[in-house]
Amino acid sequence: MPELRRDPVVGRWVIIATERSRRPSDFPPAPPRRTEGPCVFCAGQEASTPDEVWASRPDGGAPNKPGWRVRVVPNKFPALRIEGELDPAGEGLYDRMNGVGAHEVVIEAPEHDAALDRLPVEHMAEVFRAYRERVLDLAKDPRLEYVLVFKNHGEAAGASLEHTHSQLIATPIVPIMVQEELAGGLQHLKIRKRCIWCDIVRQERQGGGRIIADGEGFVALCPFAPRFPFETWILPAGHRSGYEETSPEDLLPLGRLVSRVLGRMARSLADPPFNLMLHTAPLRAKNLDHFHWHLEIIPKLTRVAGFEWGTGFFINPVPPEDAARHLRGEGPSGGPK
Amino acid sequence: MPELRRDPVVGRWVIIATERSRRPSDFPPAPPRRTEGPCVFCAGQEASTPDEVWASRPDGGAPNKPGWRVRVVPNKFPALRIEGELDPAGEGLYDRMNGVGAHEVVIEAPEHDAALDRLPVEHMAEVFRAYRERVLDLAKDPRLEYVLVFKNHGEAAGASLEHTHSQLIATPIVPIMVQEELAGGLQHLKIRKRCIWCDIVRQERQGGGRIIADGEGFVALCPFAPRFPFETWILPAGHRSGYEETSPEDLLPLGRLVSRVLGRMARSLADPPFNLMLHTAPLRAKNLDHFHWHLEIIPKLTRVAGFEWGTGFFINPVPPEDAARHLRGEGPSGGPK
Repeated sequence: MPELRRDPVVGRWVIIATERSRRPSDFPPAPPRRTEGPCVFCAGQEASTPDEVWASRPDGGAPNKPGWRVRVVPNKFPALRIEGELDPAGEGLYDRMNGVGAHEVVIEAPEHDAALDRLPVEHMAEVFRAYRERVLDLAKDPRLEYVLVFKNHGEAAGASLEHTHSQLIATPIVPIMVQEELAGGLQHLKIRKRCIWCDIVRQERQGGGRIIADGEGFVALCPFAPRFPFETWILPAGHRSGYEETSPEDLLPLGRLVSRVLGRMARSLADPPFNLMLHTAPLRAKNLDHFHWHLEIIPKLTRVAGFEWGTGFFINPVPPEDAARHLRGEGPSGGPK
Repeated sequence: MPELRRDPVVGRWVIIATERSRRPSDFPPAPPRRTEGPCVFCAGQEASTPDEVWASRPDGGAPNKPGWRVRVVPNKFPALRIEGELDPAGEGLYDRMNGVGAHEVVIEAPEHDAALDRLPVEHMAEVFRAYRERVLDLAKDPRLEYVLVFKNHGEAAGASLEHTHSQLIATPIVPIMVQEELAGGLQHLKIRKRCIWCDIVRQERQGGGRIIADGEGFVALCPFAPRFPFETWILPAGHRSGYEETSPEDLLPLGRLVSRVLGRMARSLADPPFNLMLHTAPLRAKNLDHFHWHLEIIPKLTRVAGFEWGTGFFINPVPPEDAARHLRGEGPSGGPK
């Protein structure tokens, strides 16, 4: 059973994946295999994965058979396990609990060589529908407090299989980064009586040159203080704390905007490795005034080294104003590129 | 001038290195050049670096000439600049200031093919003396609040020059990770009236199997909730908040212990890339009861991906009890390896 352990100084939890325990001779791990397909995520290979927990089948068809457009399956090598009780326990200064949670894979397309940013917009919207359906379903499990949806694209960003997919890990703890955002949002609400992300959208719309795209209810922007070059946030223009509150009609414009941003990144940065993360409100916190869901996209273009790991400070060689200009498709002078 | 910018939600500062600004076509950066030597850090090449700010010359000799054992020079391409005023400014929700600070390189040995863990212990102690002297000197600059000493070893850990060296970045802000440790330490002190790191040493000495080495005033251990496989902390066994309070006599045992741990890592993990970070108290906070300086060493054996960047949760496939056993030089059964 994997174990969750808490650092007694800063309160950060880690997952000790004892079942996948490695010996020193297992490092460095072998690079991921490149396959021409079909792989276990391809249409026709449904029997190679655990049984699906959700799928989009616009033309009907049986579960775990071809005919799907987006398919969600439990991860065969999960970081956390769905069975068991948490059994929290103390040991002097330390706290631990069983590694209970869910770890699922969202296979974004049946074709081996598909790429998220090149999917038709309707298909992209189905991927975002899959996220929504899974968050709503996992919220029914009272042991779970949070669901993180994320995507690793490219080996340098941590992807171990090249067939386009995202993942979802549900945890019995609200992650420390989300707690920090909640705390920052709450402080702003207390003082200014407004949502800080709504304030960010308002200020960015007044100028500063960091907006990439704006319209149809969503805004894409490069944040004022980005950790990474070309870091991009996408958020609903109106206040909404939980991603699962996104209405079905909003999934199409959301898909269109993400598609546009990822496509622009792929073209202007030569298909960079990237991570995409969905920050939504905790499962047990409905309609918060001080949280506003958002996507964070971070291309992996620089190495994180001792200074960053030691301080939490990041050195970013690309001002977000320059990044936004490129991601809008404009050249250095502001004209079309 | 580089700029410091603050994220309005979580309060994290980033350095926007505008002077080293890169265009999309500059990514991915070229890999570091491998040189057989001599390089700019080698003995005899002193004119290729900025003038030294400190050097260890046991046999005497003129500054910026050969004869040194450890040499500290300003970084030729600094992330922060020593000239100028901070000029903090607001812009609606946002805060920024000039990127004032110091960025220095500690050249750990004159030979191109030296390795930190293979230096004689007396030489190792000189490296730790260099850190101490520079912290004491930089503390005189009232604009600076913190000094982070760190080392990137190996390309995957962010090293761009292979000649063995560490770095030091002094910032006008106490970094968020140190602030989090200070806050955790203060909370523990308030409730339990003790230093949390002293408590950790006490508890680890009572068992748990995570101590790697203990003696001569310093302890090396794998922490209970490590983010990374084989993550190791080294700290003084007695309470001491600032690294610069380390007495000259303590530098030799410290050097010996670090040498032993790094040597064991190099042998059992095939010379892994690693980051070493020195967490000391802020420059303006003397003799804190709630902070205890420590070194953190993190070998780079796993990739940090979307889940980690999105949550602050880390998935670690090596329990620290296993890691400590290996770093003590014992095999899986507990016997000598």
